[in-house]
Amino acid sequence: MRLWDKGTEVDDLILDFTVGDDHILDLRLVKYDCLASMAHARMLHKIKVLTQEETEQLVESLTIIKELAEKGEFPITKEQEDCHTAIEAFLTDKLGEAGKKIHLGRSRNDQVLTALRLYEKEQLDNLRASFGELRQALAGRIDRYGHIPIPGYTHMRKAMPSSIGMWLGSFTAALNDDSTLLKAVFKLVDRSPLGTAAGFGVPVFELDREMTAELMGFASVLANPHYAQLSRGKIEMTILSLLSAVMFDLNRLASDLLLFSMDEFGYIDLPERLCTGSSIMPQKKNPDVLELVRGKYHIVCGEESKVRSLVSNLTSGYQRDLQLMKGPLFRAFDTTAGCLEIMTLVLSGIEVDEDRCRSAMTDELFATEKVYQLVKEGMPFRDAYRQVAKMAKMRSDR
Amino acid sequence: MRLWDKGTEVDDLILDFTVGDDHILDLRLVKYDCLASMAHARMLHKIKVLTQEETEQLVESLTIIKELAEKGEFPITKEQEDCHTAIEAFLTDKLGEAGKKIHLGRSRNDQVLTALRLYEKEQLDNLRASFGELRQALAGRIDRYGHIPIPGYTHMRKAMPSSIGMWLGSFTAALNDDSTLLKAVFKLVDRSPLGTAAGFGVPVFELDREMTAELMGFASVLANPHYAQLSRGKIEMTILSLLSAVMFDLNRLASDLLLFSMDEFGYIDLPERLCTGSSIMPQKKNPDVLELVRGKYHIVCGEESKVRSLVSNLTSGYQRDLQLMKGPLFRAFDTTAGCLEIMTLVLSGIEVDEDRCRSAMTDELFATEKVYQLVKEGMPFRDAYRQVAKMAKMRSDR
Amino acid sequence: MRLWDKGTEVDDLILDFTVGDDHILDLRLVKYDCLASMAHARMLHKIKVLTQEETEQLVESLTIIKELAEKGEFPITKEQEDCHTAIEAFLTDKLGEAGKKIHLGRSRNDQVLTALRLYEKEQLDNLRASFGELRQALAGRIDRYGHIPIPGYTHMRKAMPSSIGMWLGSFTAALNDDSTLLKAVFKLVDRSPLGTAAGFGVPVFELDREMTAELMGFASVLANPHYAQLSRGKIEMTILSLLSAVMFDLNRLASDLLLFSMDEFGYIDLPERLCTGSSIMPQKKNPDVLELVRGKYHIVCGEESKVRSLVSNLTSGYQRDLQLMKGPLFRAFDTTAGCLEIMTLVLSGIEVDEDRCRSAMTDELFATEKVYQLVKEGMPFRDAYRQVAKMAKMRSDR
Amino acid sequence: MRLWDKGTEVDDLILDFTVGDDHILDLRLVKYDCLASMAHARMLHKIKVLTQEETEQLVESLTIIKELAEKGEFPITKEQEDCHTAIEAFLTDKLGEAGKKIHLGRSRNDQVLTALRLYEKEQLDNLRASFGELRQALAGRIDRYGHIPIPGYTHMRKAMPSSIGMWLGSFTAALNDDSTLLKAVFKLVDRSPLGTAAGFGVPVFELDREMTAELMGFASVLANPHYAQLSRGKIEMTILSLLSAVMFDLNRLASDLLLFSMDEFGYIDLPERLCTGSSIMPQKKNPDVLELVRGKYHIVCGEESKVRSLVSNLTSGYQRDLQLMKGPLFRAFDTTAGCLEIMTLVLSGIEVDEDRCRSAMTDELFATEKVYQLVKEGMPFRDAYRQVAKMAKMRSDR
Repeated sequence: MRLWDKGTEVDDLILDFTVGDDHILDLRLVKYDCLASMAHARMLHKIKVLTQEETEQLVESLTIIKELAEKGEFPITKEQEDCHTAIEAFLTDKLGEAGKKIHLGRSRNDQVLTALRLYEKEQLDNLRASFGELRQALAGRIDRYGHIPIPGYTHMRKAMPSSIGMWLGSFTAALNDDSTLLKAVFKLVDRSPLGTAAGFGVPVFELDREMTAELMGFASVLANPHYAQLSRGKIEMTILSLLSAVMFDLNRLASDLLLFSMDEFGYIDLPERLCTGSSIMPQKKNPDVLELVRGKYHIVCGEESKVRSLVSNLTSGYQRDLQLMKGPLFRAFDTTAGCLEIMTLVLSGIEVDEDRCRSAMTDELFATEKVYQLVKEGMPFRDAYRQVAKMAKMRSDR
Repeated sequence: MRLWDKGTEVDDLILDFTVGDDHILDLRLVKYDCLASMAHARMLHKIKVLTQEETEQLVESLTIIKELAEKGEFPITKEQEDCHTAIEAFLTDKLGEAGKKIHLGRSRNDQVLTALRLYEKEQLDNLRASFGELRQALAGRIDRYGHIPIPGYTHMRKAMPSSIGMWLGSFTAALNDDSTLLKAVFKLVDRSPLGTAAGFGVPVFELDREMTAELMGFASVLANPHYAQLSRGKIEMTILSLLSAVMFDLNRLASDLLLFSMDEFGYIDLPERLCTGSSIMPQKKNPDVLELVRGKYHIVCGEESKVRSLVSNLTSGYQRDLQLMKGPLFRAFDTTAGCLEIMTLVLSGIEVDEDRCRSAMTDELFATEKVYQLVKEGMPFRDAYRQVAKMAKMRSDR
Repeated sequence: MRLWDKGTEVDDLILDFTVGDDHILDLRLVKYDCLASMAHARMLHKIKVLTQEETEQLVESLTIIKELAEKGEFPITKEQEDCHTAIEAFLTDKLGEAGKKIHLGRSRNDQVLTALRLYEKEQLDNLRASFGELRQALAGRIDRYGHIPIPGYTHMRKAMPSSIGMWLGSFTAALNDDSTLLKAVFKLVDRSPLGTAAGFGVPVFELDREMTAELMGFASVLANPHYAQLSRGKIEMTILSLLSAVMFDLNRLASDLLLFSMDEFGYIDLPERLCTGSSIMPQKKNPDVLELVRGKYHIVCGEESKVRSLVSNLTSGYQRDLQLMKGPLFRAFDTTAGCLEIMTLVLSGIEVDEDRCRSAMTDELFATEKVYQLVKEGMPFRDAYRQVAKMAKMRSDR
Repeated sequence: MRLWDKGTEVDDLILDFTVGDDHILDLRLVKYDCLASMAHARMLHKIKVLTQEETEQLVESLTIIKELAEKGEFPITKEQEDCHTAIEAFLTDKLGEAGKKIHLGRSRNDQVLTALRLYEKEQLDNLRASFGELRQALAGRIDRYGHIPIPGYTHMRKAMPSSIGMWLGSFTAALNDDSTLLKAVFKLVDRSPLGTAAGFGVPVFELDREMTAELMGFASVLANPHYAQLSRGKIEMTILSLLSAVMFDLNRLASDLLLFSMDEFGYIDLPERLCTGSSIMPQKKNPDVLELVRGKYHIVCGEESKVRSLVSNLTSGYQRDLQLMKGPLFRAFDTTAGCLEIMTLVLSGIEVDEDRCRSAMTDELFATEKVYQLVKEGMPFRDAYRQVAKMAKMRSDR
């Protein structure tokens, strides 16, 4: 039975269409809705809507649901639409009256918002940990190979001397910047929307929103109920921009590794256990993993772009379009987490071929150095530049 | 066992990561790969690679696989990676030698391309049929309500008289334009890539590509093997642009219906069986279905945008990034088909409230007509315009 | 004086903001609005709104404006907002009464639509011509160098033998597909919106829309006035998708040329007159032109993406948001035209280094051929594949 | 003369194409390059590359250039390509030897990065100030009208009571979140790339990067030269995500204002001096300004999307594609600044029609309140919900 069931029949095709795969997507939110519902129950007790006994029963049942969900044993049916209905149904079924009372002072709107924000906080924490692991993998390679010189390229042409250390170090620096962004995003997420109900607050009863916020571990309360709804999409965009920024680093690292491990360069060895093969060409050792990491940047950007335009040109107040954000958000978090993990593995496995690197350090990489030596000897920079350019041209014309 | 298994071990995480959900996505391609493999087997027989008996065995087994797949009983394991491997494994397991011979003269690259194009052709055919159904639903409403006047809006302000017929008719016209596009897209898709192998054709053996193309029902052969690979992404982009164009019509139709069914307008009645409710507000009859159709335009655009950037900045020849196109393509086709179906249902259900429409036909809608009457009586247009404007201003200032 | 001036004051900042750079962008539409206005005047004469003399005066003045515009001597002031106002102002100023009569039976809405479609038709014609020139440049290179073998790559690793001819031929094939799309797009554009006025047609007077359509060279009339407005954006999206498809070919061609002209490959020589230099490194010959062509694909896609979301979630009838489409459309046409021209120049200039190509044709490229030879001698494909794979592995382990 | 001129001829079309409109775009960077060049000159003096006199001459000339630029009197020719060349040319022309020495220890690559970051810092500061002004305008309206009740909508249907204060307050809250993001973005920008040269640092000479950073007012030095290049795009993406977030608020605020000022609602009055008119319909007062603000969100998102994909799939080290980011960045900053300014003006001008607001507060908005009253009297929430729903249904069926 749907939360809003009033006894009229709704076309089955419509129900199917409106639920979509929400009941599948919502599986990962059960845990967070349970945590939020426990806090909500305790608060309803405090403001005297629930008795001590009802509260204890509810908390206990919610704990059971949470544990079932963590074992993958709390299914949500298409009929139930989403995790919130499934949980209320379970409670009502098990506890009767107490179950029917739990929804006072909230709406599915703030329930979704709250569960999502709890989920997002945990995902952001995981992300932060993954940054650390990738940074360590980078540090490991820099320790071992950092001193080896490689050509630095601009415009895909040899430019000036670089090194494995300087090159890989740039990705460490990029991750550091991502951490700075993550901190700001986390701050925006870390506020409790519970109690904003359908986006207009709650009449008749005085909720204690600080209490629920604290019980759920939020840093503060999201005060304006209207803003709670407006933040839907705004927060997710911000998260998705962060994930795109992270995936950008991986996209560029993968692109470099793909080029530098080509036989024509040979700076990097990708061990066979990280490679896959071809169905027709027996000799192939293919770097599929790197190609997929590179490609998945675009997947995450695409999810971000969905959210950016999904929420636009709408008037205020919840609209069902917003529901379509769950998929993109979940997919982007999963994709980014998967790519961070796999790149940590790949980085721990790659080897640097010092011989190939050193033999690639050809003369033209040192042209700027020659200019600078002339400057050191007293020639103005631009004159020195032209003199070295002239010599380079003569050589290449021969 | 993977098609490219050569006896070395590959890291499990890598396998997991590279396969992703390909083995799930590929379920819908089994049928098309069977059709392509039958054609391929027959051609191998013609060029004397397979005996008559081997060919018959292969075709028979492929028919079995196809039927199993249509009943959802041909699973693909993660180990197998994709439908092509699963099918070859089944054949080899069942037929021995004959199964091991089927892959001659092709690569997974052209197999995927071929199966995708067969899938795409069928989907485009379905799309064309759905256009027809929606056009019929529109025609039904126009027949019944077309004569009723409604205000025409520009800048979200009443502008000039319009009618239900003119308004709904614009969506019929839009679908007609989509049909023109669909025809061009279909033409690009309708060419056989089979025999281009990994994108460089096939040495040693002379394939009869016209024969396989004809057996599979393609209009012609995609001649340049290199282009077969380059077309990966290019074709899908084109399809996705078409789907975006269709979803645009639905997005705008849904937006109109959402506005016109607001109580503040009341031109359109959305029957309760097409509506859903709220968990907190008992009075609500929400048009979720329209909001979701509106929102899903952005999902399809997002999938298009993924493909657009996924394939960019790459050098020629297959790269694994391209594999990531399957998901977006399938999702976009499913989404568009679902929305066309549901909008056909919605349109058949909506009613027009003639009273509310007529009472909305207020004076200001006829200002241009007044100007034109003055012109008819001999006043130059711009002078007549200024005179009517002056009168309108006086009235609104009172 | 603005067309809608009614004697009230509008805030200057507002005027500035709403006009934006329309008066600059519109310079390229003057010519087309003149052609449309001539046709409109002749039709107004036919339906007896204008006298013979007025019509001749108007046509003559419009011819003058058109000629001035082609010489860049018909400025549009910010005050005038757009080309339509500037033209009407010029006519009224010069001809008095006749000028004040010209706007009967049309609105700026259908004027913009008409001028845009005339512009789009001409641009699409130019595009078609550019395809021809690029195809010729490709044919020239294929004639001279087509026979030279180059490694074919998959996964950025050597795969099988290819050739300059097969590789460059794939871009010819891509352009052929673009031509097919262009034809469909042209068909959608080639219909006259003139007479749909503000999107609701015209009261009181009976316009002869077929007559104006024919005078302007349109294949037919866009019948539904509501659809004329809905097509705004829909048509432009379709054009932009086409331009993205073209730019995709150039993006991939540029990517290949950038890689193959790296010193590490050396298949392609980019003559110095096509290269630029570095301010610090005197030895550099940089392929900026190719990098910019590659990059500009993303510019065109970005413009497409603007239009896709700009027009979404709106209710029917003209809304000013649509005005923002002009910039993206013009920029995308200019960018694509510029890139086609420059790539035609680049292609005519590149040379193929046959020695480097031939020496890159190393053994592993022929592994599939070896497998096929074994098959020819009677071994089933998959067994032959495994045998060659084993040999390859042994060699690489040594 | 170009900085990299070495005496060979480059095709004019190529030069034209590669410069594009850089010489126009760069006009706004002259000022920042002057500041950076002054700091660089002082540092070169400290490390004894320049004499005291040369340094003073350079600083003096750079001050002149800066002042010329601020008056719009420092043109950059197409031949010069960009501001950096124009400035060096001016210095060399005027000072001879000293001018030729200034480029030591830097490349155009870090010059561009440095000028951009100085520009970005100033723009972000302006943005912060604009937030303040818009917040003040919001506060002004809340002060005057905040107490007035309006219907709160969900699913575009009346839901529960809201108020002007709660509604407008949500945009204040949104701007506060933008401020949090802005702070993080500013932190990433506020580091000096000067001295990273072409992305690989500088040989032979020991630069004092801390000194230049301090002279230019940067909080710190961007240490890894490779990362300075990788950050190109990464930083701009981050800025563009911030601008999209801001524009999102304005898009939604404009959407609300457009709806609420429709005659069918009438909650908001948009004074005539903020409106524009129609060329054919004399009665129209159109809210173009709001439509354009709404639409410009998509322009900014499109610019963001360009940058996101422009920088993808590239290998490390500067590539000319990155140059194409300037346009999107500048356009996005300008657009956002313009929209913030105009919305501040609009907000200060709008009036609330208290009568229309109050008369829109119809019964159904209080259904939840009725439910809660029943709960207060002892009925479990879900039972109360069903009872009120039943009553509502009976009423609407009558």
